[in-house]
Amino acid sequence: MAIIESVPNFSEGRRADVIQALVDAIQAPGVLLLDVSSDADHNRTVITVAGEPDAVLEGLFRVTALAAQTINLFEHRGEHPRIGATDVIPLVPVSGITLDECVTLAHALGRRIGAELGLPVYLYAAAAARPERKRLPDIRRGEFEGLLTSIHLPERAPDYGPAQIGPAGAVVVGARPFLIAYNIFLDTPNVEVAKAIAKQIRESSGGLPAVQAKGFLVEGQAQVSMNLLDTGLTPLHVVFDEVVRLAHQQGVGVTHSELIGLAPEQVMLAAAAHYLKLRGFRSTDTVEGAIQQAALRHKRLPPT
Amino acid sequence: MAIIESVPNFSEGRRADVIQALVDAIQAPGVLLLDVSSDADHNRTVITVAGEPDAVLEGLFRVTALAAQTINLFEHRGEHPRIGATDVIPLVPVSGITLDECVTLAHALGRRIGAELGLPVYLYAAAAARPERKRLPDIRRGEFEGLLTSIHLPERAPDYGPAQIGPAGAVVVGARPFLIAYNIFLDTPNVEVAKAIAKQIRESSGGLPAVQAKGFLVEGQAQVSMNLLDTGLTPLHVVFDEVVRLAHQQGVGVTHSELIGLAPEQVMLAAAAHYLKLRGFRSTDTVEGAIQQAALRHKRLPPT
Repeated sequence: MAIIESVPNFSEGRRADVIQALVDAIQAPGVLLLDVSSDADHNRTVITVAGEPDAVLEGLFRVTALAAQTINLFEHRGEHPRIGATDVIPLVPVSGITLDECVTLAHALGRRIGAELGLPVYLYAAAAARPERKRLPDIRRGEFEGLLTSIHLPERAPDYGPAQIGPAGAVVVGARPFLIAYNIFLDTPNVEVAKAIAKQIRESSGGLPAVQAKGFLVEGQAQVSMNLLDTGLTPLHVVFDEVVRLAHQQGVGVTHSELIGLAPEQVMLAAAAHYLKLRGFRSTDTVEGAIQQAALRHKRLPPT
Repeated sequence: MAIIESVPNFSEGRRADVIQALVDAIQAPGVLLLDVSSDADHNRTVITVAGEPDAVLEGLFRVTALAAQTINLFEHRGEHPRIGATDVIPLVPVSGITLDECVTLAHALGRRIGAELGLPVYLYAAAAARPERKRLPDIRRGEFEGLLTSIHLPERAPDYGPAQIGPAGAVVVGARPFLIAYNIFLDTPNVEVAKAIAKQIRESSGGLPAVQAKGFLVEGQAQVSMNLLDTGLTPLHVVFDEVVRLAHQQGVGVTHSELIGLAPEQVMLAAAAHYLKLRGFRSTDTVEGAIQQAALRHKRLPPT
């Protein structure tokens, strides 16, 4: 069974009735609601859902239709950059599906939103149709107000839907790997140690691929706070081991770590296999994995 | 969703048509076949199935009925001790269900086999109704032939079903924790090191609870070969760390480890959390775990 996650962002974080209606709308049959986070200052709501691809895409289409009816960007004020009522829809592979397949799904969803809702759609991240649209900030440049006066320009032509913009603004649809927010705590109150380690491991200063990192002081303890943007490139256990190694170089230990939110099971199983030096371990070597595989085969086995 | 595993043993390992019929019979709707292993010398077949409790119990009842019709213990010869056509049925909790709940299921299955199939049933392991019936070898003492002449004695009275025995013999039903077969390989050709470590860690010589261990030489490499009988008592990662520690004491390293068969996901997630020093990690912190929990909630609660 393929499972995808999606974390659509909506430009409404204040009106409880509208937020509730969005939460209701996204839950098409088979769509499971994992989280709802609203922020009044940002005037923005982030909903996390998961399920089989068809179900999730249907839920996303329905909620996008509703957001277009109930959120008016001409009246929207908030700190967070945005260009649409449904501002951005990332599709994220969880299990049994590849990032490339999520790119195909992003195109299908974008095409449908463009055609049936008449909204301009931009594709981003792994689904980007133009290199200059890979990064979300580049697409959001000028925000809704800027797009009003520039959507007619060739460089701002939408990937799907009309080159016209109304109160619902535009929708950015894309595909990206699962993002893990992960913190590691050091046994020192010296935040400079965490900042130095963060600088050593983050990709932007020559560290590990697909790792963002900063150092913080949290309740008197130095913390390396990270986003792991692609654990296919840099697994979580590689990040942990590297932070432990760099900390030891400074005579500092690691007390514990924490996930902010969720991690795909596969990431945890890979960590277990790594530390246990398990040779040839596959996710189907768990009882649950074997059951899933047997259910997929849906056939009877001859005796061996 | 609760999942149990069962690994029933049948006193037939030679007639392919009978084995196939057993494999077919056990697959009631919702029962997933994970493995079939037949041994001609033992004249015995072990089938591994899993699924939701009701489905698995129905499959076990059906296969027990068929085995009673097709296997005749008066004609059965084989090396392995046995007292019945369906010789033993362990029920094993995998996820979402406790060992105690599996004890209740074992009683229900034993009662049904006794009442509807007219077979004598003995309860063993965690489901044992008498302390002297905890261990399988104690129940199998004298095998089928011995039971023929002793079933009328009070100490051999079955827990369910009649105190009468026919060609199908008796059935032993019980509940036990998941058993993991696990091997750790040392970077030495000296089997004595593996034997010494095995002696130090096995429960029978004062080592870790619920751990059986022996030392072997496998393709020139010393191997500590183990059965982990209850990873609730002694987690797999505790066993790994202890073998690494004891090996290092002898100046020996660990090259790798391997699972023989399957391990419950929970065991692997616990290992990952241990090595990553993840504070407060629960199985619902994986995307898949959260989806399962949301699916359970979805049946009861309105959207939040």
